[in-house]
Amino acid sequence: MVKFQDSPDILNETMSLSVKPIEIIKVNADGSRVTPDLVAVEEPLEIRIGFGTLGDRQQKSLSVTMRTPGHDYELATGFLITEGIINTFDQIESIKYCEDVGRQEEKENVVRLELKPDVHFDLKKLQRNFYTTSSCGVCGKSSIEAVHVACTPINDSIQVDKEMIHGLPDKLREAQQIFEHTGGLHAVGLFDLKGKPLLTREDVGRHNAMDKIVGACLFKKEIPLSNSIIMVSGRASFELVQKALRAGAPIMAAVGAPSSLAISLAKDLGMTLLGFVKGGSFNIYSGAQRVGL
Amino acid sequence: MVKFQDSPDILNETMSLSVKPIEIIKVNADGSRVTPDLVAVEEPLEIRIGFGTLGDRQQKSLSVTMRTPGHDYELATGFLITEGIINTFDQIESIKYCEDVGRQEEKENVVRLELKPDVHFDLKKLQRNFYTTSSCGVCGKSSIEAVHVACTPINDSIQVDKEMIHGLPDKLREAQQIFEHTGGLHAVGLFDLKGKPLLTREDVGRHNAMDKIVGACLFKKEIPLSNSIIMVSGRASFELVQKALRAGAPIMAAVGAPSSLAISLAKDLGMTLLGFVKGGSFNIYSGAQRVGL
Repeated sequence: MVKFQDSPDILNETMSLSVKPIEIIKVNADGSRVTPDLVAVEEPLEIRIGFGTLGDRQQKSLSVTMRTPGHDYELATGFLITEGIINTFDQIESIKYCEDVGRQEEKENVVRLELKPDVHFDLKKLQRNFYTTSSCGVCGKSSIEAVHVACTPINDSIQVDKEMIHGLPDKLREAQQIFEHTGGLHAVGLFDLKGKPLLTREDVGRHNAMDKIVGACLFKKEIPLSNSIIMVSGRASFELVQKALRAGAPIMAAVGAPSSLAISLAKDLGMTLLGFVKGGSFNIYSGAQRVGL
Repeated sequence: MVKFQDSPDILNETMSLSVKPIEIIKVNADGSRVTPDLVAVEEPLEIRIGFGTLGDRQQKSLSVTMRTPGHDYELATGFLITEGIINTFDQIESIKYCEDVGRQEEKENVVRLELKPDVHFDLKKLQRNFYTTSSCGVCGKSSIEAVHVACTPINDSIQVDKEMIHGLPDKLREAQQIFEHTGGLHAVGLFDLKGKPLLTREDVGRHNAMDKIVGACLFKKEIPLSNSIIMVSGRASFELVQKALRAGAPIMAAVGAPSSLAISLAKDLGMTLLGFVKGGSFNIYSGAQRVGL
């Protein structure tokens, strides 16, 4: 019998964990208005594993994944199965949130699984590649801090036209050569402040499409991207906002929804973050001063 | 001046690298037919970095990412910028594909960047978490092998009805509670062979939604998922197919497109892979014998 402490999953609090209320500015042909909205929560989850014989227990941080809170024990055990670390449920001794973590709000971002003493776990045999973390084994270090990369706050006085923003999605789609043929790729596009397409890159991984854009600009000595807009074909995650900030982009627009953490980061560093940019409408999540309304 | 060897990007061969011709079975109300199609290529790229003073050069494998080939040098340099490892182009000495890699077809899956000798690179200061790889520093080991997790071939005689498959996307969407509120989440659903919804999980990361499903089934002692269909709300990547295979799922259906490597893996291990399941139509990429046509 696997021992586990109360998990929010069990308390049926999933919805309140997974969704966060925010305030946005909704922009369409009729004008703009401030309105309440809900966004999907994105937070890091660190999965730690305890293993070894009774007299020689060890701990290892296996993975930090950006996830939506809720069903964390399922996520952690599922991860162990799908990544080939365990084969059966019986190999798990216990599951709990890690208590020796600093701030209260961080406690539910670290799950610790103890394998039974007779389960053989060979670190060297980890064929698969995980996110490893610098907070590995360091209890008390914030998971959030562990996923942060140094970004410089953006501070400028540029302003763009809202009609120009309405036109971005069609221009991005037009530039998507591979999507055209396969119907299945993420794209990131770079535009100037008038909405002129400068560069598009496509990839099965949206973070790769973003890195390709940044790399191409680096080759052309055009970093930081002070006078550009970055548009992504899907959703705006924390990782994408962080990468765009590292490249110095003042405005990021997404066809899809942003996550809670993407919005927080954009706000903290002064980036303009736009979401649901499609069909002549978009939402402003941060940095509204750059959009002429 | 950064030295780099000819990259396929420069040779303008991007499209031929990024797209792969395949044969599929297209199923709709009119029946089914075999037809040629194109899919987006997905392959691992390992990024290696050389650093240190002239007399004390070191090599480190930084990351293995699943990417669409093409613009690899841009991807690698962009990654170094957006992950905070370098700040300017001038810090790069050279970029090239790694030559001391085993098979010919693997050579373009490993990029090596040399930092200039005066660039300080502190391994311990890598705040950010990367995919690390067991092939780390081991020239000659296949990147493809490095991302493989042991999966068991699926061998059964189950068969499902094509009408049932047409109905899956609506059922998945109905079950998406968080998407309903935020418009922005991936979902993975588990269905029985008659199309009855068993379980749904949502997450900002689709691999997490899959792990949550597998973990939930593990808790209920229902692994392997021999008599189930897994449906994903987006595209079918190599990683998602691999995770579903680890859970023993014989059939995976995706609302979006599969990647080249997802199809290869499904074929190799006998999984039925369906894509573009929407609007009363779908494509069969492998394991057609499980679909009654």
